[in-house]
This record gives sequence, C-alpha cells and structure tokens, in this order.
Amino acid sequence: MGFFVTVLGSGAAIPTGHRSCSAQVVNVEGFKILIDAGEGVQNQIRRSHVKMQSISTILISHLHGDHFFGLPGLVSSMHLCGRTEPLDIFAPQGLEEVLEAIFRVSNTQLNFQINYHTLSGDTLCQILENKKCKISSFPIYHSIETYGFIIEEEKKNRMVLRRNVCKQYNLTDDEAFKIRQGFDHTLPDGTVIPNGELVQPSKPVRRYAYCCDTSYSEALIPILKGVSMLCFDCTFDSKNADLAISKGHGTTVQAATLAKQSEVLQLLLTHFSARYKDITPLVDEAQAIFPNTIAASDLSVVDVPTMLSDTDIDTQIDEP
Amino acid sequence: MGFFVTVLGSGAAIPTGHRSCSAQVVNVEGFKILIDAGEGVQNQIRRSHVKMQSISTILISHLHGDHFFGLPGLVSSMHLCGRTEPLDIFAPQGLEEVLEAIFRVSNTQLNFQINYHTLSGDTLCQILENKKCKISSFPIYHSIETYGFIIEEEKKNRMVLRRNVCKQYNLTDDEAFKIRQGFDHTLPDGTVIPNGELVQPSKPVRRYAYCCDTSYSEALIPILKGVSMLCFDCTFDSKNADLAISKGHGTTVQAATLAKQSEVLQLLLTHFSARYKDITPLVDEAQAIFPNTIAASDLSVVDVPTMLSDTDIDTQIDEP
Repeated sequence: MGFFVTVLGSGAAIPTGHRSCSAQVVNVEGFKILIDAGEGVQNQIRRSHVKMQSISTILISHLHGDHFFGLPGLVSSMHLCGRTEPLDIFAPQGLEEVLEAIFRVSNTQLNFQINYHTLSGDTLCQILENKKCKISSFPIYHSIETYGFIIEEEKKNRMVLRRNVCKQYNLTDDEAFKIRQGFDHTLPDGTVIPNGELVQPSKPVRRYAYCCDTSYSEALIPILKGVSMLCFDCTFDSKNADLAISKGHGTTVQAATLAKQSEVLQLLLTHFSARYKDITPLVDEAQAIFPNTIAASDLSVVDVPTMLSDTDIDTQIDEP
Repeated sequence: MGFFVTVLGSGAAIPTGHRSCSAQVVNVEGFKILIDAGEGVQNQIRRSHVKMQSISTILISHLHGDHFFGLPGLVSSMHLCGRTEPLDIFAPQGLEEVLEAIFRVSNTQLNFQINYHTLSGDTLCQILENKKCKISSFPIYHSIETYGFIIEEEKKNRMVLRRNVCKQYNLTDDEAFKIRQGFDHTLPDGTVIPNGELVQPSKPVRRYAYCCDTSYSEALIPILKGVSMLCFDCTFDSKNADLAISKGHGTTVQAATLAKQSEVLQLLLTHFSARYKDITPLVDEAQAIFPNTIAASDLSVVDVPTMLSDTDIDTQIDEP
C-alpha cells in the first residue's frame, strides 16, 4: 500500500475554483491520516480515491478557518453515513469547545466516539505510535499557535529478507512474513536462526513532514533532518517576502532554502495564495535553489520518496 | 432589478457532486438576502452572478449543519476581502455562541459588525422591513426548532401610472418617479392631483415563502395564502412518506398538496435527498397534483411570479 499523500486542498485563506483550502490525506500502509480540514474537505474526499470512513486520525495544525472549517461537515457526514469507529483528533486547545458547541446547538448525538488530543509543547513530541507509523508534532511560526507534523513509517515495515533465505530454509509465506515482522526462525530440528541473519540491514525509514502555515526559521533545520519529503508553506513568491513575514507565511525561496539546509529528499510546495493563477514561476524560483521541488495540486497523489542506492534496489530482490 | 431567487444549494444533509447543501439568495430590487448557508456556500456564490459583499442579510432556518456550516467560511471571506458594512443574521438561539467561539479560538477580529437577531415565536412575526421588502418568520415542523420565511416586496415598488397621465400632465421622468413613490402631483397653476387619480389600483405584491426543513402541516395553509412562489422541502418521494414524517421532512405529494391548498402560484421543490440521482420522477409526482411545479437546481435563477391577468398586463403599458 506504500506511503503516499493525497492532496485535497492546496490553496490559502480563501478557496478558489482551482484550489480548495488546506487538507491532505497521508496513507501509511493503509493507515489514513487527514492533515487539516479546510471547508469542503468532504467534497474533496468524495472526488478523490479516499474512502471517508477509512480516515481514523485527524491532525489540525491550527485554528484558522481555512484549516478546519470543513471538519464539522466531515464529522457530521461520517455520522450520517453510519460510522461507529472512534476518531482521533489532534488539535490545539479550542477545537473541542467549537465542535461540542456545534453538536449541542444542532442537537446531534454522534454514533461514534471522538477522542480529542490537545497539541502542546515547544519541542518535537511523539503524539501517536502504532504498527504502521509514528507521528510527532512540533511548534511552527505563525500568527497563532500552530504545529507541524512528522509522520514516520514503522521500521519493521521496511524489513526485506536477505537473498536466497526463502530457498535456503524452504520458507512458507507465513514464515517469511513473520521474519519480516522481526521474529527469529526455528528450523524443524529446533535450531533457531536469529532474525538478524535472515533480513537485510534495515532500509532508511521514510518520513513526511508537514509545515503549514509558518514562516521560515533556522530552528526547523534540526527537526527536519532525515525527512524524505517536506511539505512547506509557499503562500508567496520571493517578491512578497516582507508580506510573508508579517503574516507568518513562507515564500518559494524560504521553502527551498529550508529544504536544502535540512537535506530532505523532496520538497512539496503548498498553500498558494489565490493571487497566483499560474504557479509555474513560483516552482521555478524554488527549483533554482532546490531542484527536487514539486507543487501540490488538488486531488494529486504524491509518493513519499525513499533514499535507495542502486545496490539497495538490487538487494531487495529475493531470488527464487 | 426584479424579484428572483438564485439557488446555491438544493441538496439535503450531505453534499453531492451535483447538489450542494441548502443555500439561496433572494434578490428584491437589489436587496440581497441569503437564506441558509450550507457548507461551501462561498464557493457557490463565487460560481453564481451574486457578489458576496452585496449580501446584507442572512436568514438561517435552523441549526442543522447542512444549513449553516458554510457560514463561518463565508463570514471569514467577507472579512478577508475587506468588508466594513454590517451584516444582519437572523437565526435560532445558539448560532451566535458558535460563531463567537470560532472567532475566539481563531483569534479573528472582524472588521465589520454582525447584528445577531434571534428567531422566536410560535406565529408569523415580521422580522425586517425596509424600502424594498418585508420579511416574516414562522415556526415549521422539523426535528429541532426551525423557521420558515416569507419575503414580501414593498407595495410602492409595484405602483404603475394610469394610462395617458404622462401625456396629459406632460410629466418629467422625475415627476413620474415621485408619483410612483406615492406622492400627489402639483400642476403649475397650483392644482393638486391626488396620487390615487394618477396611479392604477395597486398590483398584488409578490411574496416568496421558504419552508425547509419541515413536515407537511395544515397549519401552514393560512400562513401561505397569498404567496406567489412557495419553496418547499422535497427530501423524499411519496413512497418514503413514513420516513419523511419520522425525520421531519416533506415529500413530493405533500409539497404539491400544500401548494394547492394554499393557492400559491408556483411551487419550487428543493432539499432533494442524495439518493435521487434523477429527480424527474419526483417532479412528475408533484406536477400531477400541482402542475405549476418546478425543481430547484444549483446555480439556477428563478423569478418570483406575479398574478397578472391579460388586462393587468395591458394596463401596465403607459401610452406615449
């Protein structure tokens, strides 16, 4: 199932005909995380390949409307469409108060549990861990309390068998699966083969970082080291750097500079101001500094890249 | 400028690719009233001919999400786009609490005033009167506190000069305008011609009634007498009458029966359940009972009709 991002909204502040407000679904081996929920997110989900009820976790970066005004409608539709599975929502202080007021005045009794988790802290904090991934939050630099997120795939999911072990030990599919999960293997004669002798040295895990809305800050560099794909605030082009600073947003040049300084593999620009009908010049500005830059567009799907050498790719093949 | 309705959303509960949630703008001689504000209403306004900032009054029928989840985004965008004119919002108790909580947690200080007016009362109550129209509210029959609205054009706007008075008194355009506003006319010799001798007996004023979400009730008949166009809840077809009753909604047959009993001129069906991909059979059911039935569709514009006989039409022409 892989590790990929479905962009649902890539615009700033006000939705346009081409870009909805911020929202994206990150899929880590089938575990689906919605990051931000701008107005109309339920419509965008319907237009995408994502199944609404498969979203189990929602991360809200901050409480400006263009990042959460779609949440009441999404939660209501989940309810109306029969959801019973609980939903985890991570957000800054205040979201629960708003949602509970909405459900109170509309006399809505949800058929499922919302588990609210309040984001806080002034450093990188792990907020969730399961079999598929770990999620951490960290404060970023906007006009109100705002958090960035790093989603890191679970290391075990990256385990690959060494060459020829299937043939050597005549492994069944179940046995091979257990070894990839980290278990040792016991032969019919009782000999235990340690897991380390059966799997390759671990591949580097992939990490996806989301930083939107935020200004550039050098303080982000150590946090973003080791990130495979950085999704960063690109509300403005470089000519509007002063405006970006005053509003707590980023520019093309700042996003690209941070990507270069943090040595990420790929940069995904998002949160484009409605003033830009054509964002090609913005992408060009960023690529001049950091060539592996791409632009988010609504309903596009992007894979989180992995750092594999040719040798790595070769050794992934388990010879028959 | 006339008296017409721009449908922004004609669907029920959950937005679909074809129908947004409830919202429409009523234009009475340039005075623009938004009725209900389902999620995405700001997008629908942008797709229509309506200018967002020209809306001065918003009526929210009730506090189910599909009727007001678009309001926070609309108000925010009005603010971000520089609005300074005040905005009147009429809604049941609870909306102010929700909006104020949203603006508090997002640290938003609006640049314009919202005047909240709480709907209440168990009979027809006039809630607004200006030079263009009068608006009244009345309770309807849903699962939570819900109001219908009647918008009645100002009688003076319907005044038409009698035949030949322009020629007889050699009226200037300004003089003719004043007479249509209800003033008497003074001749150069000081003779006063009473207004009643200059204008035709008043045309019947046009009234637009909005009843959504609601069950059918005979108690609505006296309220709706004299209405030109009735916009009524048509969530279900006649086969689902029991479901309609249990959920506080209307059916095709109920809407048409009420239109017939109330002797309105035209019926506008709206709030169609997402289960109906093609609503032609629903319109057919209603037309079998009340032939002058039309169906709302997103972004359609419908004139509020007037009851004119052939003679009326003829006497509207002021002979040169």
